[in-house]
Amino acid sequence: MKGEKRKVILKEKKVEIPLAKEELEVVGKQVIRKDGYEKVTGRLKFGADFDKAGFLHGKVLRSPHAHALIKKVDVEKAKALPGVVAILTAEDVPGRNGFGAIIPDQPVICGEKVRFIGDGVALVAAESEEAAIEALKLIDVEYEPLSAVFSPVEAMKPGAPKVHENGNLLTTVRIRKGDTEKGFQEAEVIVEQTYSLPFVEHAYMEPDVAMAIPHEDGTITVKGPMQAPFTVRRNIAPVLHIPISKVQCVQTHLGGGFGGKEDSSIDIGVRAALLAWKTKRPVRMEYEREEVTLSTAKRHPMIIQCKVGAKRDGTLTALEGTIYNEQGAYASLGPIIPPAGGTHAHAVIMLPGPYVIPHVKVDGYLVYTNHPYGGAMRGFGAPQVNFVHESIIDELAEALQMNPYDLRMKNCFELGSVTATGQVLDQSIALKETMRSAADQFEWFKRWRPPPSKEEVEKVEKRRGVGMAIGWYRTSIGTFSDGCGANVYVHEDGSVILHTGITEMGQGSHTVLAQIAAEELGVRIEDVRIVVPDTDIVPEAGPTVGSRSTTLMGNAIIMASQAVKASILEAASEILGVPAERLVARNRLIFDRDDQTRGVEFKEAARRALATGKRMMGQGWWAPPRPSFDVETGQGYPYFVYTYNTQMAEVEVDTKTGHVEVIKVVACFDIGRAINPILVEGQIEGGIMMGLGYAMMEEVLLKEGKVQNLNFQDYMIPTAMDAPEIVPMILEDPNRYGPFGAKGIGEMPNIPTAPAIINAVANAVGVRIRDLPAHSEKVFHAMRGRRG
Amino acid sequence: MKGEKRKVILKEKKVEIPLAKEELEVVGKQVIRKDGYEKVTGRLKFGADFDKAGFLHGKVLRSPHAHALIKKVDVEKAKALPGVVAILTAEDVPGRNGFGAIIPDQPVICGEKVRFIGDGVALVAAESEEAAIEALKLIDVEYEPLSAVFSPVEAMKPGAPKVHENGNLLTTVRIRKGDTEKGFQEAEVIVEQTYSLPFVEHAYMEPDVAMAIPHEDGTITVKGPMQAPFTVRRNIAPVLHIPISKVQCVQTHLGGGFGGKEDSSIDIGVRAALLAWKTKRPVRMEYEREEVTLSTAKRHPMIIQCKVGAKRDGTLTALEGTIYNEQGAYASLGPIIPPAGGTHAHAVIMLPGPYVIPHVKVDGYLVYTNHPYGGAMRGFGAPQVNFVHESIIDELAEALQMNPYDLRMKNCFELGSVTATGQVLDQSIALKETMRSAADQFEWFKRWRPPPSKEEVEKVEKRRGVGMAIGWYRTSIGTFSDGCGANVYVHEDGSVILHTGITEMGQGSHTVLAQIAAEELGVRIEDVRIVVPDTDIVPEAGPTVGSRSTTLMGNAIIMASQAVKASILEAASEILGVPAERLVARNRLIFDRDDQTRGVEFKEAARRALATGKRMMGQGWWAPPRPSFDVETGQGYPYFVYTYNTQMAEVEVDTKTGHVEVIKVVACFDIGRAINPILVEGQIEGGIMMGLGYAMMEEVLLKEGKVQNLNFQDYMIPTAMDAPEIVPMILEDPNRYGPFGAKGIGEMPNIPTAPAIINAVANAVGVRIRDLPAHSEKVFHAMRGRRG
Repeated sequence: MKGEKRKVILKEKKVEIPLAKEELEVVGKQVIRKDGYEKVTGRLKFGADFDKAGFLHGKVLRSPHAHALIKKVDVEKAKALPGVVAILTAEDVPGRNGFGAIIPDQPVICGEKVRFIGDGVALVAAESEEAAIEALKLIDVEYEPLSAVFSPVEAMKPGAPKVHENGNLLTTVRIRKGDTEKGFQEAEVIVEQTYSLPFVEHAYMEPDVAMAIPHEDGTITVKGPMQAPFTVRRNIAPVLHIPISKVQCVQTHLGGGFGGKEDSSIDIGVRAALLAWKTKRPVRMEYEREEVTLSTAKRHPMIIQCKVGAKRDGTLTALEGTIYNEQGAYASLGPIIPPAGGTHAHAVIMLPGPYVIPHVKVDGYLVYTNHPYGGAMRGFGAPQVNFVHESIIDELAEALQMNPYDLRMKNCFELGSVTATGQVLDQSIALKETMRSAADQFEWFKRWRPPPSKEEVEKVEKRRGVGMAIGWYRTSIGTFSDGCGANVYVHEDGSVILHTGITEMGQGSHTVLAQIAAEELGVRIEDVRIVVPDTDIVPEAGPTVGSRSTTLMGNAIIMASQAVKASILEAASEILGVPAERLVARNRLIFDRDDQTRGVEFKEAARRALATGKRMMGQGWWAPPRPSFDVETGQGYPYFVYTYNTQMAEVEVDTKTGHVEVIKVVACFDIGRAINPILVEGQIEGGIMMGLGYAMMEEVLLKEGKVQNLNFQDYMIPTAMDAPEIVPMILEDPNRYGPFGAKGIGEMPNIPTAPAIINAVANAVGVRIRDLPAHSEKVFHAMRGRRG
Repeated sequence: MKGEKRKVILKEKKVEIPLAKEELEVVGKQVIRKDGYEKVTGRLKFGADFDKAGFLHGKVLRSPHAHALIKKVDVEKAKALPGVVAILTAEDVPGRNGFGAIIPDQPVICGEKVRFIGDGVALVAAESEEAAIEALKLIDVEYEPLSAVFSPVEAMKPGAPKVHENGNLLTTVRIRKGDTEKGFQEAEVIVEQTYSLPFVEHAYMEPDVAMAIPHEDGTITVKGPMQAPFTVRRNIAPVLHIPISKVQCVQTHLGGGFGGKEDSSIDIGVRAALLAWKTKRPVRMEYEREEVTLSTAKRHPMIIQCKVGAKRDGTLTALEGTIYNEQGAYASLGPIIPPAGGTHAHAVIMLPGPYVIPHVKVDGYLVYTNHPYGGAMRGFGAPQVNFVHESIIDELAEALQMNPYDLRMKNCFELGSVTATGQVLDQSIALKETMRSAADQFEWFKRWRPPPSKEEVEKVEKRRGVGMAIGWYRTSIGTFSDGCGANVYVHEDGSVILHTGITEMGQGSHTVLAQIAAEELGVRIEDVRIVVPDTDIVPEAGPTVGSRSTTLMGNAIIMASQAVKASILEAASEILGVPAERLVARNRLIFDRDDQTRGVEFKEAARRALATGKRMMGQGWWAPPRPSFDVETGQGYPYFVYTYNTQMAEVEVDTKTGHVEVIKVVACFDIGRAINPILVEGQIEGGIMMGLGYAMMEEVLLKEGKVQNLNFQDYMIPTAMDAPEIVPMILEDPNRYGPFGAKGIGEMPNIPTAPAIINAVANAVGVRIRDLPAHSEKVFHAMRGRRG
């Protein structure tokens, strides 16, 4: 923990754990995940598995227009249909007719106009799903279509159709560091390119569900697979016009979120709650896959112009970038909230990459259009900009005729580096070590060759190439509600209850957090039970996003554990006659550090603590050091710590068809400390697969504002068949703020994968794809284009 | 709060509140109770109102023998009955086959023998209630009857049948203060009498219900009207052989407990849990009224010999007492746990009454018999002994030819008095003031006359008389698990969630506790929502007994509120630019104490607190100063503070029939501070009615161990028709340890009512009833006996 860096290269079995077993008992171990048994046996209930008896069925009537005025909504025929209990239009909303993760600009039910194909125009509740569907058809809406706008560049032009009254430009974020004009004068080589990234769907396996139950005492319960129950609650209360304390949001087990359920659970939750509130009956809503794809948030598409300059030796001198970030119809998680946060600000902050660049200028425009809206998706703006900086660095290396590894190593962050926002990286930064470890493992220098000439490409049917990319990513959201609370209750038999509002989404958070509590208390992992995230139970924890859970909540849990442990040690001290300061709790035992033969069982001490009136609970609250960020200059400390990583990919390109097969990905991460290495590996493998999809095939196809590939027949994501050999590597440079040194891992793994693959494609066949995805047709045409 | 005593004589509208409205905004007000609306509209769901669909029905096969060996249990025929899912016998219990609030000596299912009529011999779970009942009849149990014992005095004799292996004497508690031999030598008048008190049923309106739901993850939920969910949980876990953290006990709204549901919810909860655990299905159990009366705990019957000596001027010199306390078949809440606690120890401690007596000797024997068992019932041993000391003081007054008021005033506790256990009463003691206020209100001196001669009695058909009694009662249980935890969460709209494990049983605790939170935070009562007591949610709070809720939990809530309020004030300080120390929070506003024009809304400060990462929660834990009590000498500080009261009753006795009508009861209480005067009045009125029932009619009739009056047709309790005029009076001498000075009120009101009434009967017709209840027949015979 004293700044040492330890390698845990698990796949290779080169496990080095300098902290002996005596020092950490539970943390760092590959314990079985808490929800493992129920999941593998199929017994675990997801939201849609709950009993439907007693529930009305809710449905949303959706707009077929991308932009139109609503002239009239006639619900009479629909109301008359047997089994229909309620049809709600905008005027039925008792409170604020708007929701949103940051700005409540999306109507619960559109009143004046619709802004995208899929916008909600009416809500139906009926005794059966069939009646609800039938009722949708009987609602007669008269629209007056308006001109629509489908590109952020078009939307920024004067005279463009206005999606919202205040205009289409939602947010501008800038970085101004040094003087880029001077920087480019100093440059000997300059590369300038434009890249574009598509809308991408989260493709979580479990569609959205919400069950809303109104109670006689004026409270309401909403259950469902929520990624951020507090955000859902924060939205329901004003819509129903009741205090937040009267809204209970309960997470059901979640079958994939990836950021998407942060938004979608607000959407479906608010609407189900409204139907239940108005009908005074329990209401269940379930979105079909098509509805999910049509109407919920996606990864922001971006068009990014980037220009980078360097000296002949590779030293970077300047970077300029312009981001046209398409928000779509509603704000969702796009806009900034000071001091930082929001997908857009995050993208701007991340664009210069993990490189020391003396002169930086970035302008980022976040723009409304009449498309579906962009929201949080694993990486939160970073996959887009990482693709840009890691592509352009490779293009620069090519121009400089350097090995891209060397160009990166020359410029990338190390201890003491200053970022484009002026932040000094003063701890926990092992980026260069991840490059070295990955290179060793991948045998980079043996395998890397300069890109081939077009003649060389044509010689063989299949060509292999290698590419790399590096990345950095925040731990925390650096803004509104980054504080985390936890409660720990110890019982008289030594068993423990842990309250945490961090949601388990398959990522294993509840296992990792239980490990932290068990370690700190000195009990076993099986002694710690985490109660379901329920806003009536758990303290405010913020959303489960931003790779913040382990680090921020882990700290809160340590504090809570320490608070209650003090009672247990005091009781043990009374039993043993040994000063509490000398006692150590480990593995259900409490013993004298100086005479380990003197000890007492944890549960015996707990029993005495209760009997003597000692505190049987602890509470912890932790928020990162306060962030800072100036929107005009982009200067500040937007996040308190970063995770770093290097990914190296090998691909094989079919020179006749353009088909790319990813052969191998080596990925090495500096995550401070792996609380549970097997779960970290799981995150790495899953993230890389998601990054592979981003690189090769994923794209929401839109035509006049309408999504063309609504279902998994048309929307392609990678399957096991597409999986390369993945070598996850963990390298630990403890974070001084982290629980046991941990930093976040959730999002990082899916970020540099796409540029590593695309760089490998360029390395294999000499063509560079600047607009994702690089599906076979695109690669084929690029190769053909090169041939002329 | 500086030791001042304030009078709040509400019924008389002589309201004096020296603490101005500016000082207390919510506390001290007659706010509407939180559950009022749902209760008066009948919408509130009690345990039995929950949907039964999906539940198996559980039943208990009960022993018809008071004491018998179980030779064989044949379940084959019952198992074969269609609809029967499980029949469990003793061997099916996976863990500890025993439960109990203190000692787990009651079998969940009896294996070797039964100890009272009603003991559980087998459990049935079936698809329908009918099948379950039918199955009970088909279980064939072969008993070998044993001699039984039905009196504590008999049970203590050598050679008495042994109810439990270790013998019938469960606990002996003594008080030894001074030298009673010397004290009686100094006495000029000595009175010695024997009194007896019957088994009394709680007669709560809502019979017991439990719903047990096993979950796939190895946890189990048990719902029902529990008085002490933590005690239920503590019993279920070892019976199922699982950790406490895997047992969730959830309180449903409770329709009357009075101490009885502390035991009965363990009984039914453990059995329902066991059936659910074994069948892996939800199981619902509901006890019929007859089962409740037959098998659940009652108020302990006692036979008490008492001797008291005084000088001619009334100064008490000595008291000796022997308590034969009948425990019945199982230990329940009878036995002591050091340092104090248990009904029996409490009775012994309370026997000398609120009097300064230099020489005291008490021996209390708690004895098993083959009767139903004694447990907690409002007053916890005190109504029995209070009846004794307040009867014998009146008998002494008669012997001394003194006004019983003067005799009490001469000897009763005041500031600085030393109790029989050697405790110095150094604060919050206004017993004498309650006597003076009650006497003024009742016009005691105008109305009291010496008891009549038998000739005077015969002269008129109806004779009126007056009687008084005083009492003291602990706040807290003074033992195992007296610590209380609370969580307070503040939301960004200023609304509040409060977690407290204190159960709402109709006594209004949740209203009072919300008032305390609202006052301390500076919000309104409607801003505070208390989440249902659920052991997965709320921190350990101990049982809801011992008149401890307001005081102990109130303190925990104040501490929790202060912890989170610090964040809100810090945020307000940032907004206003005023140091936090100078800020006052009241009525949803936070303002500068020195310039009240500078202020900010509470919710605005809360929003900023969240946005800036400040703690949005607080946790409090409070336990009283550690009690002490030596079982051999009875010396120590068993409880940290006491409530005091005086009751005066007027009765009219029909000299021809013995019928007694209670005309009026004036009752004045020193409760430190009334957090909600209307709820205090409610407790006083309800308690007095219960005391009236104890005095006049309530008695569980037993014949060879069998309860004769199982239903409300036979078991009489007072109705509105029996209600006298009740004048509740509140007098406040703040308790330095109490929240806003509060002490407990729950149990006190029902304690001195019986002796006040019985003393009034003696005063009216010159006969003294020493064995309760004093029903007409008994009074008639006593009068006839006096006539000779």
